[in-house]
Amino acid sequence: MEIPEIYRERINSCLENYLNSISPDNSYQSELNDVMKYSVLAGGKRFRPILTYTVANLFDIDLQKVDSCACAIELIHIYSLIHDDLPSMDDDDIRHNQPSSHKVYGEAQAILAGDGLQALAFQIISSDDEINSDTKVKLLNLLSVSAFEMAEGQSIDLSIVSKDVDIGLLNNMHKKKTGSLLNCSVMLGAILNPNISKKDLTILDSFSSYMGLGYQIQDDVLDVTTSSEVLGKRQNSDSVKNKPSYPSILGLDESVKKYESLYQKAIDEISNLSVNEKPLRDLTIKLMKRSF
Amino acid sequence: MEIPEIYRERINSCLENYLNSISPDNSYQSELNDVMKYSVLAGGKRFRPILTYTVANLFDIDLQKVDSCACAIELIHIYSLIHDDLPSMDDDDIRHNQPSSHKVYGEAQAILAGDGLQALAFQIISSDDEINSDTKVKLLNLLSVSAFEMAEGQSIDLSIVSKDVDIGLLNNMHKKKTGSLLNCSVMLGAILNPNISKKDLTILDSFSSYMGLGYQIQDDVLDVTTSSEVLGKRQNSDSVKNKPSYPSILGLDESVKKYESLYQKAIDEISNLSVNEKPLRDLTIKLMKRSF
Repeated sequence: MEIPEIYRERINSCLENYLNSISPDNSYQSELNDVMKYSVLAGGKRFRPILTYTVANLFDIDLQKVDSCACAIELIHIYSLIHDDLPSMDDDDIRHNQPSSHKVYGEAQAILAGDGLQALAFQIISSDDEINSDTKVKLLNLLSVSAFEMAEGQSIDLSIVSKDVDIGLLNNMHKKKTGSLLNCSVMLGAILNPNISKKDLTILDSFSSYMGLGYQIQDDVLDVTTSSEVLGKRQNSDSVKNKPSYPSILGLDESVKKYESLYQKAIDEISNLSVNEKPLRDLTIKLMKRSF
Repeated sequence: MEIPEIYRERINSCLENYLNSISPDNSYQSELNDVMKYSVLAGGKRFRPILTYTVANLFDIDLQKVDSCACAIELIHIYSLIHDDLPSMDDDDIRHNQPSSHKVYGEAQAILAGDGLQALAFQIISSDDEINSDTKVKLLNLLSVSAFEMAEGQSIDLSIVSKDVDIGLLNNMHKKKTGSLLNCSVMLGAILNPNISKKDLTILDSFSSYMGLGYQIQDDVLDVTTSSEVLGKRQNSDSVKNKPSYPSILGLDESVKKYESLYQKAIDEISNLSVNEKPLRDLTIKLMKRSF
């Protein structure tokens, strides 16, 4: 089994165990657990937690110590998908090849499931006995900063629908909406090593900036070039919603060149790490070649 | 100036300074800051942070050390009000005598403002240099547990609309929906003292259970007996929405007796604290006599 596949199975099983451990009080009907499980366990690439495991593993951190951060980052990501899919936001009815959460459970329960998942992300790290308090505070602070920037990014994204925007504004918006949580996925894995050097932290921060923007431009390209079935969500959603995108501003070919060069910069960056960067390089190459 | 008034002014100024410190990036239009300020600075009783200050002060904690917890608890409370008011939830158009956030900024920006405020609550505590890491982790863990239970409580509340429920279920629902965050307001103030005894913690926990349920029953009574103008939100909202309430199950007189006896139990409880409990007793009496 390939490395990312091992991590994917690990995160899936951690998420399932964690959600099962939050036993609903059966004295009354609370749908919250059902909605959370429906949304979290539907699958998905699990790219963010895989990044966290991969980075932490470069520095020989026990995987057991990484589980809570890996879960937290995915819980925040899933909460953002649930809220983004709502009718008042992006109004998407399909996610991970199944009806979006609000299509099955209604808007109110979907909003609350997102709210609950955000709280659980902070709960799972703060209650992890494997991590010391100083490190936990750093992890929780970074997670909170990224979660806030993500909400800010989505707010900007909604405000520029149908507007003429330049590439600078698009970059800025995505830096918050997608980039901040991707950066967090990398940096959580790094911070778990209390002895990591400032130089390695700077390199990983820079790596994640290039990779994060590359990832988003590639997402915009795939939205145009890939079928709904493979994407697990509707194709051409940006153009249907009049959302400014890289292909709409730069053109498709230029967008492909742009994201490939950003991934290459990300790969060049980590060649200067103090540890063997091969697993992270392999993951980045795999990512560059992804088809959804 | 009376003590709660001093705390109210303090929390209002802390919240305003904090929201102003999150400077929006003016290179694009993000409404998120505007929505957050509109919702947070609209006023309100500020009862939760006043509780936190009052409890912390019993144990001689510097107010400066309490500010981040006081802000965090109010940010979580305000986020919950924004989301609860949404059309798909309680559909309330008036809050604190002004149009609800979604009536002014639209549903999407209101949802995101709530999401952002939840993240900020964890950010403000995790970045507070006045508090040591061990204590911070305890505070953040308690806050995350309470924020999750609050979402669970709201989920249950929505699921019992128009249903026949008994008083046990109503108590359980409110224990999560309102009680958990009130308990958190008390316990954050207590945990800020690293030397607090187990006995005092147990007493405060028990105090907050009685007080929290009393507060909710009183809220249900005030919803029936008080004008919209004084409440700052619509009168009779429970009965209009077919929500089970204490007056609808126990009757009005019995409900008043019930909450008065719960407040009295709360007051009796704290007479056993190892410190002079007068400020907390006075606050509880003030609360029992509140008219909105």
